Amino acid sequence: MSHFKFEHQKIEVGQTPTGEKHFINVIDLISNEDGPFVYIQSSVHGAELQGNMVIQKLIEYFQANPFKGRLRFVPLANPEATNHKMGQYTYGRFNPQTGHNWNRNYIDIFSPTNQKKTGFELSSFLDTLLKNNASLTYDQLIFEMKKFLLKALEKYAQFDSNYGSPAQNGRLNLELQKLASQADIVLDFHTGPIATRYIYCPEYAFDRALAFGFPHYLVIPHEFAGAMDEACFSPWVYLDDYIKSYHPSAYKSLTAERENLIHTQSFTLEFGSEEFISYIDAIKDRALVLNYLKTQGICEAWSDKSETPEIAWCPLENFKTYYSVGGGLCDYHLRPGDRFDKNDKLYTLYHLNNDYSNSPLPFQTQTVEANESGIVINHSTSSAVTLGAEVYQVMENPRFI
Amino acid sequence: MSHFKFEHQKIEVGQTPTGEKHFINVIDLISNEDGPFVYIQSSVHGAELQGNMVIQKLIEYFQANPFKGRLRFVPLANPEATNHKMGQYTYGRFNPQTGHNWNRNYIDIFSPTNQKKTGFELSSFLDTLLKNNASLTYDQLIFEMKKFLLKALEKYAQFDSNYGSPAQNGRLNLELQKLASQADIVLDFHTGPIATRYIYCPEYAFDRALAFGFPHYLVIPHEFAGAMDEACFSPWVYLDDYIKSYHPSAYKSLTAERENLIHTQSFTLEFGSEEFISYIDAIKDRALVLNYLKTQGICEAWSDKSETPEIAWCPLENFKTYYSVGGGLCDYHLRPGDRFDKNDKLYTLYHLNNDYSNSPLPFQTQTVEANESGIVINHSTSSAVTLGAEVYQVMENPRFI
Amino acid sequence: MSHFKFEHQKIEVGQTPTGEKHFINVIDLISNEDGPFVYIQSSVHGAELQGNMVIQKLIEYFQANPFKGRLRFVPLANPEATNHKMGQYTYGRFNPQTGHNWNRNYIDIFSPTNQKKTGFELSSFLDTLLKNNASLTYDQLIFEMKKFLLKALEKYAQFDSNYGSPAQNGRLNLELQKLASQADIVLDFHTGPIATRYIYCPEYAFDRALAFGFPHYLVIPHEFAGAMDEACFSPWVYLDDYIKSYHPSAYKSLTAERENLIHTQSFTLEFGSEEFISYIDAIKDRALVLNYLKTQGICEAWSDKSETPEIAWCPLENFKTYYSVGGGLCDYHLRPGDRFDKNDKLYTLYHLNNDYSNSPLPFQTQTVEANESGIVINHSTSSAVTLGAEVYQVMENPRFI
Amino acid sequence: MSHFKFEHQKIEVGQTPTGEKHFINVIDLISNEDGPFVYIQSSVHGAELQGNMVIQKLIEYFQANPFKGRLRFVPLANPEATNHKMGQYTYGRFNPQTGHNWNRNYIDIFSPTNQKKTGFELSSFLDTLLKNNASLTYDQLIFEMKKFLLKALEKYAQFDSNYGSPAQNGRLNLELQKLASQADIVLDFHTGPIATRYIYCPEYAFDRALAFGFPHYLVIPHEFAGAMDEACFSPWVYLDDYIKSYHPSAYKSLTAERENLIHTQSFTLEFGSEEFISYIDAIKDRALVLNYLKTQGICEAWSDKSETPEIAWCPLENFKTYYSVGGGLCDYHLRPGDRFDKNDKLYTLYHLNNDYSNSPLPFQTQTVEANESGIVINHSTSSAVTLGAEVYQVMENPRFI
Repeated sequence: MSHFKFEHQKIEVGQTPTGEKHFINVIDLISNEDGPFVYIQSSVHGAELQGNMVIQKLIEYFQANPFKGRLRFVPLANPEATNHKMGQYTYGRFNPQTGHNWNRNYIDIFSPTNQKKTGFELSSFLDTLLKNNASLTYDQLIFEMKKFLLKALEKYAQFDSNYGSPAQNGRLNLELQKLASQADIVLDFHTGPIATRYIYCPEYAFDRALAFGFPHYLVIPHEFAGAMDEACFSPWVYLDDYIKSYHPSAYKSLTAERENLIHTQSFTLEFGSEEFISYIDAIKDRALVLNYLKTQGICEAWSDKSETPEIAWCPLENFKTYYSVGGGLCDYHLRPGDRFDKNDKLYTLYHLNNDYSNSPLPFQTQTVEANESGIVINHSTSSAVTLGAEVYQVMENPRFI
Repeated sequence: MSHFKFEHQKIEVGQTPTGEKHFINVIDLISNEDGPFVYIQSSVHGAELQGNMVIQKLIEYFQANPFKGRLRFVPLANPEATNHKMGQYTYGRFNPQTGHNWNRNYIDIFSPTNQKKTGFELSSFLDTLLKNNASLTYDQLIFEMKKFLLKALEKYAQFDSNYGSPAQNGRLNLELQKLASQADIVLDFHTGPIATRYIYCPEYAFDRALAFGFPHYLVIPHEFAGAMDEACFSPWVYLDDYIKSYHPSAYKSLTAERENLIHTQSFTLEFGSEEFISYIDAIKDRALVLNYLKTQGICEAWSDKSETPEIAWCPLENFKTYYSVGGGLCDYHLRPGDRFDKNDKLYTLYHLNNDYSNSPLPFQTQTVEANESGIVINHSTSSAVTLGAEVYQVMENPRFI
Repeated sequence: MSHFKFEHQKIEVGQTPTGEKHFINVIDLISNEDGPFVYIQSSVHGAELQGNMVIQKLIEYFQANPFKGRLRFVPLANPEATNHKMGQYTYGRFNPQTGHNWNRNYIDIFSPTNQKKTGFELSSFLDTLLKNNASLTYDQLIFEMKKFLLKALEKYAQFDSNYGSPAQNGRLNLELQKLASQADIVLDFHTGPIATRYIYCPEYAFDRALAFGFPHYLVIPHEFAGAMDEACFSPWVYLDDYIKSYHPSAYKSLTAERENLIHTQSFTLEFGSEEFISYIDAIKDRALVLNYLKTQGICEAWSDKSETPEIAWCPLENFKTYYSVGGGLCDYHLRPGDRFDKNDKLYTLYHLNNDYSNSPLPFQTQTVEANESGIVINHSTSSAVTLGAEVYQVMENPRFI
Repeated sequence: MSHFKFEHQKIEVGQTPTGEKHFINVIDLISNEDGPFVYIQSSVHGAELQGNMVIQKLIEYFQANPFKGRLRFVPLANPEATNHKMGQYTYGRFNPQTGHNWNRNYIDIFSPTNQKKTGFELSSFLDTLLKNNASLTYDQLIFEMKKFLLKALEKYAQFDSNYGSPAQNGRLNLELQKLASQADIVLDFHTGPIATRYIYCPEYAFDRALAFGFPHYLVIPHEFAGAMDEACFSPWVYLDDYIKSYHPSAYKSLTAERENLIHTQSFTLEFGSEEFISYIDAIKDRALVLNYLKTQGICEAWSDKSETPEIAWCPLENFKTYYSVGGGLCDYHLRPGDRFDKNDKLYTLYHLNNDYSNSPLPFQTQTVEANESGIVINHSTSSAVTLGAEVYQVMENPRFI
């Protein structure tokens, strides 16, 4: 007898002009033993493929090894984007019809505007809940909040549906957000352009996130800017703020055994470079995920764990982008993961010679140096750059653990 | 001797990988007589071409006829976008590298974040100005504010310039915003997809804007959402709010002869459908602009003025989008400018038959009716629509003048 | 009891990276009475949509009215192309991965190269057939040739299949060609860019094609350039040539009641402009098809027939393209269907002024006149044109019937 | 005093809708000593960048070292293509307006059709030349033929110029072809997608081309398929054939000191992978070019020459493409340059599971093995592949020198 059962849902997230339907596959592995609900998706940016291999390897692992709770996987979460080929490449970062970045399209469901749209007001909900349940436990709070959250999202999806539902325009994102809304842990698998492994981690969860053992951590503030991780922690940040401010004694009792009430831990995991998969790398990538899940009580000791690397981290404001100082051909002197010092050469730009009166050389060079020491996190996928194009993203003045 | 002189600037707004430069041309017509500063640009969305013809016709007019003040024209304001051909079409609505909508990329220069970036704080500026000038006149206020605004924008452009200036990423928009920042009147020439003539008009300027004589007015709130018109009135909205709240007696005196201190009048004018120009239509389009400029004291009686049409208008919240209820082929039953009643047929969607067991017909039909009466403002440029695609934009329950 | 039965096949023509499959639907209406096999497809160029409506209307007609033979319909014959949206438009003329024009990708199955690939040599086949059947009838010849043709195409599809079948690269076209290969009449429904109604008609079938009643006929030579119509008549042109040259007495007897042995009549029908459908226009478009099918003994008298227009035609070499004389904005002075005389103005190009020292006007104009008299068949879908871009296609010095 | 002088030409090859012009830069280094004319261009496929660095390094070398003859360089030969960014990538393989592959767009100037267009018939030219010059030397023949060739190309460019010159549609290619037409040696610098270094070499020049020392040689037949190398040798192949057939005694005398009369040596050099440049690699790439130029008497002993590698080669028919056997995610097991045996694993395709009733695993795998032994020359730039997409190109059953 198996240690788990699984469920599969196929959810329509789009229709093409010729009537083809885009579906996502939702795979739930449900343990015989209670435990957290973990939600994992990959490839919301259509060209970011490696996460799919990591999901494959994770499911292989959980088929063979015990775990607790419910594990939900949504591989290839954005078929429209992954299938939009231009030349051999995948034009998958934003919607080619509208320009909307696929990972800036989620909903801040309890923003004032959205509360007005849905009629689901977090403050009244919490007031009522706390008033009616003098001795509300943390688990009850979480349970009621998740229900409320899902209902609010479902209401949002119906908004103005007699106009063809404007929410259709972001239907994929809304479906994914609903699927993730009941989870305790949300892992969004991305990649950079040409990139190393790194993770976006909200401040409140930084300590716990160290268990992943990623080599690079970007610590982000508790603000909403449209991404999945933010959409998942944002309702709990509001909840935490509100109870702390307006129900201080309840807050005191509910946080007796925890730091705060931001329940959902959500992270964006970046597994290297876009456009490619590697089964071999996926084994190492899986280890990062299992490292963390073990500390959350979901699976047992994970012996494959590679030696803990030195961990570099910085707050998001130290994650700096170097923009091209001109149009030209860019020779990247550093690779993702490389460390550099202040004044080290980052890249040389070859500009077409604008005056051949003195020299027959076609190109003039301009070399850009680092403003501060740092670590290269990623660089662009092309040497052909326009003025102002993103060239490098670096972790500046990193701290080490 | 001419009644005006003209100046021409060529401003670099981009560089390509092969070292070609994108320039915009700024054409200033400066009258011998003082008067307002009018700024007019066209084709920021690369496929929206008709405004260029209107600019051509306006300049022809002002060459032959007297005017007051300074008239600044920036035709073909976005060469990168207008030149980005995909098939025969122009992929001009957003940056094909980043997805950024070219008309949602301007700066709210006095937002808290941006004030922090630039160090230019509107409140301290106004406090100082009003404290030091007990009897400040309206004209002095405008003069000082324009100077302050330009400096703030210039500072913003320098922000983090040792990283290749992240502002480069939006360099075009910033250059345009600077060029417009000294104007009293800003006209941004756009078109819809397949569209009628209409205008976006901020509430505070609605009365004056009626002089254009556009057949359709969308009245927008004083909020910033990234567009040129908003970027131009937004600083003045902040100024008006601040002086009214914190310097009430000065406010009272400064508004003795005017309703408020929102000085710059900025509008987005939509001249029909994208991808095409028509010299003949441009003559009629020019008349709309001259109608308005006359009432602003810039030019003389305009005799070409066509008979005033009935004007339909609505607040922005009544400007409704119908999104496609499915993927399929869309037969548009109404054309831009058409009026319709509640329950009138708007469009029929032909869905590919999903079950041929009963009928050999390839398509099943679904007809969508109007929720309320209204006027068609525009529809999509294609019948091949995905689920959730924009189909129509309509003025719902319009009011008439 | 119905006068026909129908069959439906769903054929896979592609697979996307996320495992979605592209299918085409093949709908056969089979009369109780024997008669010709008619093959009709639409939207091989993904943005050319109106043919789908014509197919819908044709099937509606044949459901209600008697006909003879087999009618095969393949609507939306290229889902990959119709679904490839860029902005609101459809990037449907060529494969976005390879650049291959979807209607130049068919196979000249009896070219020397392809005969070598498949081992199916037309000359040996005909030699054997005629040697073994001294009194071969025309019907037998057609029957045997169709079988041979299909086998050759099937063999081609298997070529080098252990390399993933290079034919997969053109799988869609090959499937369509196979589906059409058994037909006696092949109608390929296209549209122009912004276009009138016109038809491409091979010389040998011109007389018969007049029955359509299209207003404009382009008469093409019997050469292969990759299009569907050519791919369908090409095998019969080879057959006709070969028997005439090498089996003259058989040829004489087989052509006793006909002009030649080019059996399949194939045409490309252009139903107006791309990107849009119109149910109302489809009724008139259907009349053109029914006009012709009636003369082929497929259906009965067609009373809806609109008054026969004057028919203009020219050989393909008189179908001239005007290419833009520069980069600029193009004001089209004529619409599809318009007639013009030599020296009439065709278009005015607005070039950005390259020297503002004398004039503030942003644009200089250049007007292009007609070299000869003619009829506008189509023009480009955009006024934003590059040097050398197709501007107009015209029928030059047309002849009238 | 310098050992050479240089000339620079800027040639317009296109105009954009906003009036920007695309130019190419032609840089001629002319030695004080007579010698061959070498033509070198790079980046005709817009994303293939490394050749530009090789040109930079070559010119640096020739500035410092003696050489003979004339060296012509055209770096960044296709600005329209290199500048067409889609996301961070370069959509540079074919014209995004027409789908025409930029390296299949050259002219077979002495094909029957083109001779008819231009009126320049090679056979009459040769007949006359040989008749009037009984003792024509090889050098005279070359001199006269080059003149004739250039005139024919110039005439072609004028064809139908009153229709806006249809040749404008391929103006870039024609300009490049004219610039190369006077050269004795033509080197076209390309790259593969993800690729090793390799060279396309016509049969007649294979022996001489070994001097380059490329690790991989693809030996191509003397046929025209639209590429630059073919367009450059094709006129000479015709010439060689014609004189051999129709002027045998002249042929005998002209070939006394050479194998044949195919004068121009033209090659396509593939410098690794697209989208990136590397200055460091360019030094090694330059050595390959200098190796060859030395044997052609153009420059002196080249001491930087790396150890001669083992050279692998095959005829073009052994250059095999593996097409994807399905849509899915492709894990490439081999890298460019890797050797493999028959039945070695080439790639594993991960197909989305189409039936979750038995297994929760999202992907099913299919591994494709090699049909024969070989060397990987290149593979696709993405793991997201459609059915029939190019996956690998390999040299099958290579021979070694």
